[in-house]
Amino acid sequence: MKRVNIGICGLGTVGSGTFNVIRRNLDQINARAQCDIVISHIGARRDNPNCDTGDVKVSRDIFAVPADPEVHIVVELIGGTTVAKELVEAALRQGKHVVTANKALIAEFGNELFSLAAEHDVTLSYEAAVAGGIPIISALREGLSANKIEWLAGIINGTGNFILTEMRDKKREFDDVLAEAQALGYAEADPTFDVEGIDAAHKLVILASLAFGMPLQYDKVFCEGISRIKPVDVEYANQLGYRIKHLGVARHIEGKGIELRVHPTLIPESRLIANVDGVMNAVLVKGNAVGPTLFYGAGAGAEPTASAVVSDIVRVARNLAGKASSLAMVPSLGFSERALQDETILPITEAETAYYLRVSVEDKPGALSRIAQILSDAGISIEALIQKEPHEDEETVPLIMLTNRVVEKRINAAIESIEALDTVDGDVVRIRVESLK
Amino acid sequence: MKRVNIGICGLGTVGSGTFNVIRRNLDQINARAQCDIVISHIGARRDNPNCDTGDVKVSRDIFAVPADPEVHIVVELIGGTTVAKELVEAALRQGKHVVTANKALIAEFGNELFSLAAEHDVTLSYEAAVAGGIPIISALREGLSANKIEWLAGIINGTGNFILTEMRDKKREFDDVLAEAQALGYAEADPTFDVEGIDAAHKLVILASLAFGMPLQYDKVFCEGISRIKPVDVEYANQLGYRIKHLGVARHIEGKGIELRVHPTLIPESRLIANVDGVMNAVLVKGNAVGPTLFYGAGAGAEPTASAVVSDIVRVARNLAGKASSLAMVPSLGFSERALQDETILPITEAETAYYLRVSVEDKPGALSRIAQILSDAGISIEALIQKEPHEDEETVPLIMLTNRVVEKRINAAIESIEALDTVDGDVVRIRVESLK
Repeated sequence: MKRVNIGICGLGTVGSGTFNVIRRNLDQINARAQCDIVISHIGARRDNPNCDTGDVKVSRDIFAVPADPEVHIVVELIGGTTVAKELVEAALRQGKHVVTANKALIAEFGNELFSLAAEHDVTLSYEAAVAGGIPIISALREGLSANKIEWLAGIINGTGNFILTEMRDKKREFDDVLAEAQALGYAEADPTFDVEGIDAAHKLVILASLAFGMPLQYDKVFCEGISRIKPVDVEYANQLGYRIKHLGVARHIEGKGIELRVHPTLIPESRLIANVDGVMNAVLVKGNAVGPTLFYGAGAGAEPTASAVVSDIVRVARNLAGKASSLAMVPSLGFSERALQDETILPITEAETAYYLRVSVEDKPGALSRIAQILSDAGISIEALIQKEPHEDEETVPLIMLTNRVVEKRINAAIESIEALDTVDGDVVRIRVESLK
Repeated sequence: MKRVNIGICGLGTVGSGTFNVIRRNLDQINARAQCDIVISHIGARRDNPNCDTGDVKVSRDIFAVPADPEVHIVVELIGGTTVAKELVEAALRQGKHVVTANKALIAEFGNELFSLAAEHDVTLSYEAAVAGGIPIISALREGLSANKIEWLAGIINGTGNFILTEMRDKKREFDDVLAEAQALGYAEADPTFDVEGIDAAHKLVILASLAFGMPLQYDKVFCEGISRIKPVDVEYANQLGYRIKHLGVARHIEGKGIELRVHPTLIPESRLIANVDGVMNAVLVKGNAVGPTLFYGAGAGAEPTASAVVSDIVRVARNLAGKASSLAMVPSLGFSERALQDETILPITEAETAYYLRVSVEDKPGALSRIAQILSDAGISIEALIQKEPHEDEETVPLIMLTNRVVEKRINAAIESIEALDTVDGDVVRIRVESLK
């Protein structure tokens, strides 16, 4: 059997997971790849106690890996967008195929890197960059290739989903759960990437480009985090038959453009994706032929991510073993590069969703009717309403409303008018609602 | 751009769906396939009013399609295993790539057909054969290729799932819902294939071969239908926190062999797959690296199935357009043919699951303790129990038990002893239980 040599750069969580999965499942992997996959070179600044590299050549200079003439496939698992970018560029320029799990790198620099790969007649694969072990990249590039994708919506950050799940199940505060997630190792010391949606935005832009056939436009994603979600809103959402999830949503609006947005979202509890809990991920894709499809699994962790990395390695190795040529059959973003079209990304004010509104109103006659009037004047209808009895010691009562679908700038204007009422106390809490039908 | 000619054989539900999806989404499909896909020939005994074939050449003799030198890919959508088999063989022998949605054909004759395809250096693709639009074949062949698959479990017959969902939601009898499903067109006039699990067995054997790397062994699948499920059992399952689903289960038992079985199954309601309702399908796959993954979508219907058929067409067309050679890169069952191993398929008496038991006992002291004693003597423990008050006019009361996991022959022996008790009335109802963790 032909031998295909792998060079792994980075021996952190995913790097060691990849090493260990290849070692443990080697017989099956080789039988599937139809060749002998050999880890021939590792580039890592330091060893990892989770990973017995044995007699595999290890270089402290990771750039020794792409420079190694024996290596056919370079696996970039160092993360970040500086050294990782240089490394991937070096590998592509050397005519090596590259496999990466680096969502930030693909989201921010994918366009140029894919071009570089094409120029050098090699592939740059990134199944592990989105939703860990879920093969969602290949589903969009291949499995759903018959479809015009209408929209997709994903729980694509496990940390955020863990926090929201705990807040709901145990009625805990955001800060409290975040601290626990950090202690458990689910959240980084600096949790901004996860809880403010930056990580999800990286992943969303990749999914959207694959779905709609457009170059990556990371800077156009609207991004709102979960740090301002209150247990009381989680609870009211429940009472209304909804769950709050941190969703990435990409939607094609015929004749207008693409919505690209990450934000907390109320979802009807009867939807399967509303029941994806803890650190798990799921992506719901609506195609115009297939209808709704859902892909669910572990979105992070050493071995689930390694599962995706190795699936890319197998794919490339199958090509290398089966053919003299190494030409990529499946284009990087699923569409031929010539067919990629810069779609208009709509500003968030033009996005259309339903809304959950929570307003603190004074417990006086007429308070509700004035709010209802403002919404009605704006052409916004109230689909569901909860009005609570006032607590003894409080002068305001919470008023919770679900609206119909409306363009965001219209709800914003209505909210401004509501906040200006003298019977309304403080800011209106507003969370977007998606039916995901 | 290179032109790839498609010949479609069969213009029934899936055939017309495939024609219409290609026509409607042609721009996107071509951009993804990196070539011009042209339906150049249709073989159909009669026209289909859902499908305006326009100026496409139509032959009443479907064998004219594989014989047509212009056709590169033959799409077999006539169904059955007689003429369809001849047609696929004719096409492969002519050196045409074949795409089929025919689960019976692949399950029963896949081994020889894959060999024939390899012999003629062409591909035989069958994404649409299992779970309609869900790209589960490619997930197992490619997306999860890093894993040893431990087990998989699927709701892979939409008709059966529709019936069970209706029985649960509306507390209706099996026969009653079946009649409605037939009226709605979900179930065939002869519903045996769907409700007795034959259709699911066809699909399960395909999934299992892909998961475990073994030749197809359709005749080894254990198969039990849903026609004997009673509303009362659906209701008791609910009370215990379970749903009854008609599952196909394939499990690798280290050192022993493979369980391959289709039967009604109690699943904890907290599992995502327990909430897959109506005609929808889902497949849960547990890999040793990725953990549990779930793939959900429409399992039947013209366009969802067409979505899978066209994804295979795009895959083959990409190869044809990108390369001179037509060599298959991905082996038919995901593993190199040499690596396929005949695994032992365990008889159902050796399968291990937990059990739901319903026993009609006389309302007398000691009835329960004698049953408990029999189970205890057999080393079977009772994990949950419901004992109901007797109705006024009845002399027996239902006793419902959930057991621990136990090899089937042991529970069978215990059931025989229980049925022999003079305090027990009639047969014990026994339904398998899977925790799917």
